[in-house]
Amino acid sequence: MMINPLTGYGVSKVVDSVHPDFKKGDLVWGITTWEEYSLITSPESLRKIEHTDVPLSYYTGILGMPGMTAYGGLYEICSPKQGEYVFVSAASGAVGQLVGQFAKLLGCYVVDLLKNKFGFDEAFNYKEEPNLDAALKRYFREGIDIYFDNVGGKMLDAVLLNMKFNGRIAVCGMISQYGLDHPDGVYNLIRLLMGQIRMEGFWVTKYYHLYHKYLDMVLPNIREGKIVYVEDMVQGLESGPAAIAGLFTGRNYGKQVVEVARE
Amino acid sequence: MMINPLTGYGVSKVVDSVHPDFKKGDLVWGITTWEEYSLITSPESLRKIEHTDVPLSYYTGILGMPGMTAYGGLYEICSPKQGEYVFVSAASGAVGQLVGQFAKLLGCYVVDLLKNKFGFDEAFNYKEEPNLDAALKRYFREGIDIYFDNVGGKMLDAVLLNMKFNGRIAVCGMISQYGLDHPDGVYNLIRLLMGQIRMEGFWVTKYYHLYHKYLDMVLPNIREGKIVYVEDMVQGLESGPAAIAGLFTGRNYGKQVVEVARE
Repeated sequence: MMINPLTGYGVSKVVDSVHPDFKKGDLVWGITTWEEYSLITSPESLRKIEHTDVPLSYYTGILGMPGMTAYGGLYEICSPKQGEYVFVSAASGAVGQLVGQFAKLLGCYVVDLLKNKFGFDEAFNYKEEPNLDAALKRYFREGIDIYFDNVGGKMLDAVLLNMKFNGRIAVCGMISQYGLDHPDGVYNLIRLLMGQIRMEGFWVTKYYHLYHKYLDMVLPNIREGKIVYVEDMVQGLESGPAAIAGLFTGRNYGKQVVEVARE
Repeated sequence: MMINPLTGYGVSKVVDSVHPDFKKGDLVWGITTWEEYSLITSPESLRKIEHTDVPLSYYTGILGMPGMTAYGGLYEICSPKQGEYVFVSAASGAVGQLVGQFAKLLGCYVVDLLKNKFGFDEAFNYKEEPNLDAALKRYFREGIDIYFDNVGGKMLDAVLLNMKFNGRIAVCGMISQYGLDHPDGVYNLIRLLMGQIRMEGFWVTKYYHLYHKYLDMVLPNIREGKIVYVEDMVQGLESGPAAIAGLFTGRNYGKQVVEVARE
């Protein structure tokens, strides 16, 4: 979903609180505003940070909303099994890089554009491929079991031509379609029927009840170096607008983080 | 799925058998060929008919493959709850009429084009509506929870604009798209994401293990007259080609059955 640019997921320290669940000095993550000090009047989205042996910025990503997005969409919608073929589009972002790595840990074959950094099996850049269907057929000779969609539009349409029977598509985002007056047509939906394929849009909020289960899985993998988590950190609130614009042109590599202040 | 016109679901009496599960005189339903006497070499699709207090032709429909299709798609994919809004396209067929009636029995609000016959709440003919989105908004002021799709294409596209949050779409057929050189584009898939909607194509074979559970539900409803099941019966094998062609022009009203022979 589109994010209102005046709010976003951040990591903060409580400087004062009259709420019984939060006290001065607590570290929290959740929805905050783009400013140095914020008055939080509806703290429902805030969660206390319990593990501080990992970078705090991770709570804007792998240990926060994007991590839960990757986990919920992949585990709950797609139920990946060892040996299955997984395609992640826009794997350069916070969510995509995690989906691919989680799938690798589960023994899947994973393709996207970050082959070297994250140890995926194959890679291509969807913005540079004249024929997406041919590119997918090159990398998935036996077809795709799981597609984690962050792109939508023509990419989704080409993937539909390459899905295996009983395939699953988690629709996490459709960044190619945001803001278009005339969205791309998708012509291959009959493949849902031919291939008994499930396609499901989701919001991360559906899966927050699994947050502690997720931490139990992901924290050991982070500590043991089995998951590489890449951030693209810029300094200062004034860098925010350019950073958010870059998400739509593919400028970032890894989770885009704006560091407002550091202790 | 398209049906090979040389085979189809039929009801037959065994005239001879060397298979241990079938003996002379048994009534069976399953995939047979379009002829008066057939040699069945792979009887895996055949099931013995155990209840004969209902018309035998029902085993080509409500008590056979179409019944299981309606049941599997509605119950297993869509999990209807009392008070939910259900839209069934092409409700004039064998599957559609059952989906709508099952949903009514569960306390749902049901719209399609067979209002008077089957007791649905509202009705319209998708082939005569110049603006499908407006028609849906007229009948579903609060939106659609469940769409049982038999049509695909422009109908599906309009439905996407009217789905409620957490909606479910069972893709059972896309009859408007069969045989097209250039299928219709679907432009509103971003609604899957906005509305956390699940869309799933399925084959009836996925649900055959539930057949006895289904009979336990449907047989009492048939016997008590709580379900109306309409057949469009034509006589003689020679009527078959015209009958099958009529499915694509909307000529039939109710399940199209060809009576080859009667005892």
